[in-house]
Amino acid sequence: MSQSTDKIEDLIALMARLPGLGPRSARRAVLHLIRKRGILLAPLADTLQEVAATARECLNCGNVGTSDICDICEDARRANGILCVVEDVADLWAMERAGVFKGRYHVLGGTLSALDGVGPDELRIPQLVTRVQAEEITEVILALNATIDGQTTVHYIADQLENRVELTSLAQGVPIGGELDYLDDGTITAAMNARKKL
Amino acid sequence: MSQSTDKIEDLIALMARLPGLGPRSARRAVLHLIRKRGILLAPLADTLQEVAATARECLNCGNVGTSDICDICEDARRANGILCVVEDVADLWAMERAGVFKGRYHVLGGTLSALDGVGPDELRIPQLVTRVQAEEITEVILALNATIDGQTTVHYIADQLENRVELTSLAQGVPIGGELDYLDDGTITAAMNARKKL
Ligand SMILES: [Zn+2]
Ligand SMILES: [Zn+2]
Repeated sequence: MSQSTDKIEDLIALMARLPGLGPRSARRAVLHLIRKRGILLAPLADTLQEVAATARECLNCGNVGTSDICDICEDARRANGILCVVEDVADLWAMERAGVFKGRYHVLGGTLSALDGVGPDELRIPQLVTRVQAEEITEVILALNATIDGQTTVHYIADQLENRVELTSLAQGVPIGGELDYLDDGTITAAMNARKKL
Repeated sequence: MSQSTDKIEDLIALMARLPGLGPRSARRAVLHLIRKRGILLAPLADTLQEVAATARECLNCGNVGTSDICDICEDARRANGILCVVEDVADLWAMERAGVFKGRYHVLGGTLSALDGVGPDELRIPQLVTRVQAEEITEVILALNATIDGQTTVHYIADQLENRVELTSLAQGVPIGGELDYLDDGTITAAMNARKKL
């Protein structure tokens, strides 16, 4: 096999390392890219180069952007005294798409995990404690996933911040349009316990 | 949103156009790339650039490579008088992985389709007829998919090449490890009709 064909093999191997793509879908993706090389492959290559050169994590909150301080942290209108703590940037993006939160975020970068050896210093927990004081935060919304590790992390952070700030969490319940038949028991239990009068 | 953040949005939009990736998995893939920017994003960007600059279709057979004539067509040992006709490059790659075929390929680029307005000239059928003569082909294996359009294409090509060359097709039957319960009726019928004595 020539050196040049190896480059296509290299591309397939790299694409197969993306979440959600296996070897077969990576091959299909690469063939699709080569077929659409003018309108898709070239722009994708250029954009990846630019993102590779500029993408970084916000030094303040851990959001992903292309400057040391992200757009949200730069925006003075979002300094409303409320921080929303999320596990990772995907959660932050989901909140931004919903457009319901007007404050700033703090991205932990994961959850505490005894099994995986993730302690508070592997996450952005010390920085969170610092920010609460430095930015005169009055409320911290702990928007972590309803997993065991997520809830362990909530309790740890609550201990660290107790009496310094109001701590809240997102309401649990049935998603809009959610069918009970498809929900896990924990969600149904939470929805039942938090039931409201009509 | 700053111009720089837009680049990350652009990247997500481009990734979402790959087969098998929707908006959600494109976002996850981009976050994964940014987290692994040293070991994955930068090599992927470089490799895409190289493939974008060099990838092309083989002028002889339609295979994908990085020169005008692909490695297989360049390899004199593969001039064994047998051509294997496939619908697209993914099929050629699957045959090469199996390693069972030692001749050359001819990639049609699709199948005839009255519905989609695909006629013989939209595919590499005229080139196939030319190659059969020019390369002194003795056997053409029609390895097309067992769809209605695939079989229509088989019959059309058979008409074009009749009496010039031996025409064969892949045996149909139960895949190795295949459970009857998961096979479609056509496959079971074909396997039954082609049954062999033990
Ligand atoms: Zn930030
Ligand atoms: Zn070729």
